[in-house]
Amino acid sequence: MLTQLGKNARAAAAKLTTATTQQKNDALEAIAKALVENANFIIDKNNLDLENGKRAGLNAGLLDRLMLNEERIAGIADGCRQVAALDDPCGKVLDEVTRPNGLLIQKVSCPIGVIGIIYEARPNVTADAAALCLKSGNAVILRGGKEAIESNKAIADIMRVAIEGVGLPKDAIQLVEDTSRDSSVALMKMNEYLDCLIPRGSAGLIRAVVENSTVPVIETGSGNCHIYVDESADVDMAAKIIFNAKTQRISVCNACESLVIHSGIIDKALPAIKAELDKKNVLIKGDERARAVCPDIEEATEADFATEYLDYIISVKTVDSLDEAIEHINANSTGHSEAIITEDKKNAAEFMQRIDSSSVYHNASTRFTDGGEFGLGAEIGISTQKLHARGPMGLAQLTTTKYLIFGDGQIR
Amino acid sequence: MLTQLGKNARAAAAKLTTATTQQKNDALEAIAKALVENANFIIDKNNLDLENGKRAGLNAGLLDRLMLNEERIAGIADGCRQVAALDDPCGKVLDEVTRPNGLLIQKVSCPIGVIGIIYEARPNVTADAAALCLKSGNAVILRGGKEAIESNKAIADIMRVAIEGVGLPKDAIQLVEDTSRDSSVALMKMNEYLDCLIPRGSAGLIRAVVENSTVPVIETGSGNCHIYVDESADVDMAAKIIFNAKTQRISVCNACESLVIHSGIIDKALPAIKAELDKKNVLIKGDERARAVCPDIEEATEADFATEYLDYIISVKTVDSLDEAIEHINANSTGHSEAIITEDKKNAAEFMQRIDSSSVYHNASTRFTDGGEFGLGAEIGISTQKLHARGPMGLAQLTTTKYLIFGDGQIR
Repeated sequence: MLTQLGKNARAAAAKLTTATTQQKNDALEAIAKALVENANFIIDKNNLDLENGKRAGLNAGLLDRLMLNEERIAGIADGCRQVAALDDPCGKVLDEVTRPNGLLIQKVSCPIGVIGIIYEARPNVTADAAALCLKSGNAVILRGGKEAIESNKAIADIMRVAIEGVGLPKDAIQLVEDTSRDSSVALMKMNEYLDCLIPRGSAGLIRAVVENSTVPVIETGSGNCHIYVDESADVDMAAKIIFNAKTQRISVCNACESLVIHSGIIDKALPAIKAELDKKNVLIKGDERARAVCPDIEEATEADFATEYLDYIISVKTVDSLDEAIEHINANSTGHSEAIITEDKKNAAEFMQRIDSSSVYHNASTRFTDGGEFGLGAEIGISTQKLHARGPMGLAQLTTTKYLIFGDGQIR
Repeated sequence: MLTQLGKNARAAAAKLTTATTQQKNDALEAIAKALVENANFIIDKNNLDLENGKRAGLNAGLLDRLMLNEERIAGIADGCRQVAALDDPCGKVLDEVTRPNGLLIQKVSCPIGVIGIIYEARPNVTADAAALCLKSGNAVILRGGKEAIESNKAIADIMRVAIEGVGLPKDAIQLVEDTSRDSSVALMKMNEYLDCLIPRGSAGLIRAVVENSTVPVIETGSGNCHIYVDESADVDMAAKIIFNAKTQRISVCNACESLVIHSGIIDKALPAIKAELDKKNVLIKGDERARAVCPDIEEATEADFATEYLDYIISVKTVDSLDEAIEHINANSTGHSEAIITEDKKNAAEFMQRIDSSSVYHNASTRFTDGGEFGLGAEIGISTQKLHARGPMGLAQLTTTKYLIFGDGQIR
């Protein structure tokens, strides 16, 4: 069954390599239109998922993520139109050289081929991920969670009909209907048919894919993001950035989870930061020196410094040097996003060079690590690994390259 | 034990992020000098490996690959100097955008961190791979085969002393002295310390790494390379290119293993190609239509079309269209290098777009797929996967990227 999906995907991918930008955009427009026109059908199927979810005891947060209504479906359709409006990432000449023997060698971008996406409860991922894969010329095999299976089937069916209507292969988008653990593990071993696997969801899901997949994986990950307040920081700016990075949206991977403060400025900085964070009742957990400055904050353990709270909680570590700050952050971060607040450009440059994370900020909130904020237009995830893609992944990160070599009879 | 190597490598990698180009080049020069000065020591240790190899019954080919003499050591040292002369791949601003909110976002190249290399009998890989990793700012953990362990230890020790002599951390280069299967498997699971693993060697070794590694792998691979002779090919050019691609060096991954010939030109083309290949007694195995043209060639089975011979053998498949040629090649190739010989530019363009391989040629020999021939200066291998790197991998492919974001207090 999965093998058949794999074969279908390969055949569709072969056809997509010659699809024009116009054809791909037409397909995305057709999908957007069909999703809105069939909103009631999707909502009916979504209601089945919601009923099953209630029976299975899903909590309110999960049920909310699962829920689709007309507004949310219109939002998904809008997302498809936005992807249609983006530049086609394929067929770009990225590099070109003419060798002494006369060979012209071009490095050009092209689709990866067949991409697998393993994800959890949110049915909007079905359309979002499929749209990005389609625009980048890839066939996709979607394997969503059982909680959203009826919604996912409805969305996938609508998309497949829409694609076929504009003359592209419907198997460009396929959904694995078997939501058992077996199908997920089988997908992770389909090296013959899958070029790449992208897990999206909880840390547990991502770990399971990294540990079990023989197909190359792009790891999207968690963020234990740090902000370092350097000795020469503008304290007012630091407090405002920290308040934003911690509290603007607590459940996201680019939220700030830990502060590192230079001992030379902590007397002045910590009370000012605390005054801001108190506005939203953020629980602050600090080391001994931080508690000497603000006695009413809680005690932090070593485990706190490695924790991604995703809550109104933040830890504080005191350091005596830039060097100590960098070592503490590199030892505890997840390689996502970190920031330095400083008026000292030399310190900023050293911090940015030595911090081993996908995105390193000087005097700005970590909340900007996002495909939209970086100008990528849309994102398939934020990579915390170092191969292939690092940081927000847009359409370009869903392509590979090939070398085209033009000769007139050259031999070696 | 391996965990300690991992920790040492992480610490060395942290220091290498701030190493200057001059420091790295000085280290490479020092290594080159030390290898030549200590040639007799290396040769003594190499003799132990050769004696052990003879006792273990290694064949003459393997013993030759294992053998080091003054000339070969001078060649290895020269390789290090060539790497020193190459452009530093780190610190390049690859992309830059200023967002409407005033954030300046730069995408810059930087070292990957810690790279593991698992390889087999040839001791020159120890120095070649280490030199490329060092120049790209990465710490390397080398795990060579047991056949070359004494030579590898000698080379690694000499390199470590040389690096330390110029003030860089000696743990930038470490060798795993335990050559049991256990150490190799342990390395494949060291996600905490290794950012990437590159296997170099036989198809069996590469498969074992792909199947067992939880660390991201860059797969370097085998080449079942095809040349397609289109209906409008210049037959003389085709014969010369095929002779070169098949016979110039039979044991390499970019040698041609299979011909695909259009039925409209096979009467003229195959006898001309055969006349060339006969000069080196190449065994030709063809399908029925090829054998109707040249009755004295052998019969090819389906298995032949999927075989990388690495020998004076080549298969011939007859097709009736460009489309059939492309489908046959995509179904049988290993995604390495393929060529079309044609005077029809439209056919060449379609072939180059639709063939799913790292390097696709028009009117040239597949033998050019090589870091040196592509102008990369040196290569760590040829990737046949699609993530991160595809085709010949030079220094640039041993780097990752990070985003540096410059603000003046921006919040979201």
